[in-house]
Amino acid sequence: MSLNRLVIGNKNYSSWSLRPWLLLREFGIPFSEVKIPLYAEGSKETLLRYSPSGKVPAFCHENITVWDSLAICEFVADLYPEKNIWPPKLEDKALARSVSNEMHSGFFAIRNSLPMNCRKQMVFHPMTESLKSEIDRVCEIWRVCRSRHSEKGPFLFGEFSIADAMYAPIVLRFNSYGITVGSTESEYMSTVLSLSSLKEWIAEGVAEKEFLADCEVDA
Amino acid sequence: MSLNRLVIGNKNYSSWSLRPWLLLREFGIPFSEVKIPLYAEGSKETLLRYSPSGKVPAFCHENITVWDSLAICEFVADLYPEKNIWPPKLEDKALARSVSNEMHSGFFAIRNSLPMNCRKQMVFHPMTESLKSEIDRVCEIWRVCRSRHSEKGPFLFGEFSIADAMYAPIVLRFNSYGITVGSTESEYMSTVLSLSSLKEWIAEGVAEKEFLADCEVDA
Ligand SMILES: N[C@@H](CCC(=O)N[C@@H](CS)C(=O)NCC(=O)O)C(=O)O
Ligand SMILES: N[C@@H](CCC(=O)N[C@@H](CS)C(=O)NCC(=O)O)C(=O)O
Repeated sequence: MSLNRLVIGNKNYSSWSLRPWLLLREFGIPFSEVKIPLYAEGSKETLLRYSPSGKVPAFCHENITVWDSLAICEFVADLYPEKNIWPPKLEDKALARSVSNEMHSGFFAIRNSLPMNCRKQMVFHPMTESLKSEIDRVCEIWRVCRSRHSEKGPFLFGEFSIADAMYAPIVLRFNSYGITVGSTESEYMSTVLSLSSLKEWIAEGVAEKEFLADCEVDA
Repeated sequence: MSLNRLVIGNKNYSSWSLRPWLLLREFGIPFSEVKIPLYAEGSKETLLRYSPSGKVPAFCHENITVWDSLAICEFVADLYPEKNIWPPKLEDKALARSVSNEMHSGFFAIRNSLPMNCRKQMVFHPMTESLKSEIDRVCEIWRVCRSRHSEKGPFLFGEFSIADAMYAPIVLRFNSYGITVGSTESEYMSTVLSLSSLKEWIAEGVAEKEFLADCEVDA
């Protein structure tokens, strides 16, 4: 049995679950996976057995439980300091943390209007003012991070870090809903979308049987 | 001039600003303070000069800028490792991070229905289902943390930590709106409310001239 266990929701829909899952996979950290289909009969009780907040993701390391996507990422970064799960330089880590926390606590229009859905491929409309300004802000974040770190690799801080894990569901959403972005952002999206771990997550999400009407957006 | 600068909003209303401010004060970390009155003419432009997200709080250490309350707290914990700004034991830090991140990304009913307002003293009603369950969850978090750490001191993890800073605005809200809680929670609230740094923040908030109608709740 693995030391580490990650509890997740439906791969098709659960954007918060994807974040630490992708992080663990990209850093080659072994873990076992428990999947709880969300918003089904009895799922809240099951969730509460694994996660005190009643939400996924939750992570277990030996006898320690951590919940909430970003808390898990920070905890994992502490557990494996040699892996540089945050970018190692103080100022890069500061920026990576700022944009990761900005994602964690905001972007409500994107989260509500463009729910993650691995199966979805459409062109979204109509665009509202708040959705437009959040999309612009995400693009600005990606450009700023990339402009400072383009020589070190293709991710936000050169090499893959927590910041990429936090924004991966946004990449999926922009891709699913045909959001128009600039060339730097589009290149960054291709980098993320070509990760084999993410492709695997998407394939498993697409293959799931559950259909959650509340998480679906129509064309 | 100080190495550290914290940019905050109105003390009466800005709950996110209070969190890192209280943390810095409680850990005796010197900083200069810049206050930007929110939602006034020109304040967005001013905000954007200090904070790339256009929101407070933002923190500057030498030439490094960090924004978002929790990102600032994590950054400060890294800057001053000898101060134990997170509880030092791995499992305590895991729990402290989980409850801090749960606060950072949730409790929308509390945040919307009971906005922080240092001047307010009333009994809130009517209670909705979601507000009730969030209040219950906060109380549960406080009880769980206190039950594990009561011998080490009166805060969530014994000594003051980021978790207390993150929940301090909730303490103020429960106090302002006359929310009924159990004895453990009530004792914890008294501990927080008796901090002289918090009393100072409240006094300055009360003395401010700005009145933001959108942040006011009627009896
Ligand atoms: N702030 C949390 C959000 C977690 C969250 O909202 N999870 C959703 C699924 S993506 C969930 O568990 N919903 C099930 C429920 O609320 O019953 C995090 O970052 O992990
Ligand atoms: N997730 C952010 C939230 C920051 C936030 O919403 N700040 C509010 C004041 S409490 C703000 O700056 N509002 C001004 C505006 O949006 O123009 C954090 O944790 O710092």
